Amino acid sequence: MSANINIALDAMGGDNAPLEIVKGAVEAIKSDKRINIILVGKENEINEELKKYNYEKDRIEILDANEIIGFDESPVKAIRKKKDSSIVKGLNLVKEGKAEAFVSAGSTGALLAGGTFIVGRIKGVERPALAPFIPTQKGVSLLIDCGANVDSKASYLVQYGKMGSIYYENVIGVKDPKVGIINIGVEEEKGNKLVKEAFPLMKEADFNFIGSVEARDIPSGAAEVLVCDAFVGNIILKHTEGFGKTLLGVLKGTMMKNTITKIGSLLLKKSLKEALKPYDYKQYGGAPMLGIEGLVVKAHGSADANTIKNTLIQCVKFSEADIKEKIKENI
Amino acid sequence: MSANINIALDAMGGDNAPLEIVKGAVEAIKSDKRINIILVGKENEINEELKKYNYEKDRIEILDANEIIGFDESPVKAIRKKKDSSIVKGLNLVKEGKAEAFVSAGSTGALLAGGTFIVGRIKGVERPALAPFIPTQKGVSLLIDCGANVDSKASYLVQYGKMGSIYYENVIGVKDPKVGIINIGVEEEKGNKLVKEAFPLMKEADFNFIGSVEARDIPSGAAEVLVCDAFVGNIILKHTEGFGKTLLGVLKGTMMKNTITKIGSLLLKKSLKEALKPYDYKQYGGAPMLGIEGLVVKAHGSADANTIKNTLIQCVKFSEADIKEKIKENI
Repeated sequence: MSANINIALDAMGGDNAPLEIVKGAVEAIKSDKRINIILVGKENEINEELKKYNYEKDRIEILDANEIIGFDESPVKAIRKKKDSSIVKGLNLVKEGKAEAFVSAGSTGALLAGGTFIVGRIKGVERPALAPFIPTQKGVSLLIDCGANVDSKASYLVQYGKMGSIYYENVIGVKDPKVGIINIGVEEEKGNKLVKEAFPLMKEADFNFIGSVEARDIPSGAAEVLVCDAFVGNIILKHTEGFGKTLLGVLKGTMMKNTITKIGSLLLKKSLKEALKPYDYKQYGGAPMLGIEGLVVKAHGSADANTIKNTLIQCVKFSEADIKEKIKENI
Repeated sequence: MSANINIALDAMGGDNAPLEIVKGAVEAIKSDKRINIILVGKENEINEELKKYNYEKDRIEILDANEIIGFDESPVKAIRKKKDSSIVKGLNLVKEGKAEAFVSAGSTGALLAGGTFIVGRIKGVERPALAPFIPTQKGVSLLIDCGANVDSKASYLVQYGKMGSIYYENVIGVKDPKVGIINIGVEEEKGNKLVKEAFPLMKEADFNFIGSVEARDIPSGAAEVLVCDAFVGNIILKHTEGFGKTLLGVLKGTMMKNTITKIGSLLLKKSLKEALKPYDYKQYGGAPMLGIEGLVVKAHGSADANTIKNTLIQCVKFSEADIKEKIKENI
């Protein structure tokens, strides 16, 4: 049950690399005894950061990788050419079985392309999908796909529903989670071409399909698994982030407006912080790529040490739930 | 300049019809001397409501219409068959020049189908579009299309940009408003098939195209005019509404949590109400359908008297700005 798990971690990926990434790694091994880490990236830079901490030296290794894949590079080209990049080397560790998981806050596109080309698709899976959790009034919903498949086929969407259902059931522990398709109306005849094609196929599928979910009902938690094309998934994911940030800004500005509001906010602060905590994406750690022959997890580009720590701990849960095998058996 | 304007108003459309609709009509003529109203719907029901108020009788007429088009009906079929519906009769008033505008909180689909088939497209416009304002940190952005064109072509998107630009400039008064295309990344090679096709065309167009806008940057007001396919537009519009409602619920719940938070909220209430006012969709009135030979405005399905009043007053502004002629000249 509590065997050790080796996790490869991209030390160079994201806005706060390597500082926050290395810090997160150190915090993770301190809070979870099962985790061992292979930091992938520029050895000297990683060592500079590691020097700052006291930790069990034999639980963090370094794999030197001297290239970095930028956010603006063509993912497929970058994966092919930059063999010495932290993403390619990290994914190879998973492929070779030297790590059970690879976590990166770097280029989503490169990670997804590499996940497919290096780690490889599970046989029968048409397109692997990136599936982050988003906060709702009832807890969390899984939004699938937020990855690379921006022009999905109807059959992909059915598989997203299946993979998402397996994942949600095993990680969150809800039996037969409600699966909805994101749509612009609840009636079956509503939708664009893709949704209209996918709808009847999803009705026939062997998961708990509840029909269409309108975007206005996502935040209240209308379905546990929300299926969509990656273009739509990205829009919802990023809109949640941006709108949350804007409203929080409005709230903070109001609280600091004058002496009266400042006193008011002092009285509210603690309760408000608690109530809004579920809406902080940082606590959710990362999003796994479902449908590939290994565990690859994308952390938020602006991940800090705490996010990285949570993502690494999450990997243990993912790994124990053995989603990969369950998807294999059911696709 | 301040000639009178006849506005046809669907008395039967929306969740709160006819009560709130009729009330809104009475309030509108009281607050704007230029407005005369033709209430379209079941005469006896409208009269029942009108009896409650004191108002200048010669400024509100009734046009009897005995059918209602439901939200779940096929829009095109309903428009063809239900000749005695409030929507068909109201749109005919615009077509015949007996009203300068038609406002409805009823079925969006029927209103859009009727707008195209009854009132008619402006020559050269490929697809009329529904264009609501959404609140941002900087004021408002126009989201175009949120209507019926869920599988748009690239050329439609270019026209949305043009019509949106004309509308924003003339109604909000911002010269050469920034037009962005909603996308999942800022680089030109990012996007789905539709966006990749539309992008180079928009670069060549004669409006102030600033490129891609990611969903996370919509709430901060990255562009004044946001161009997208109606599927995406609907998702953003409804997600804004649902997420705003959820966060407001969290806030209210926290404020009422205990004695301390209740005192705190008393001190904050006034400032907070003011700060959050821009995020209340009710104050925005309605969304016009751009690209047709008349003014047709969709009010929110749950519009109350105040929303209806604001929408009617807005019609005067729309009408004075003469968007229709400006679109005609520039398409």
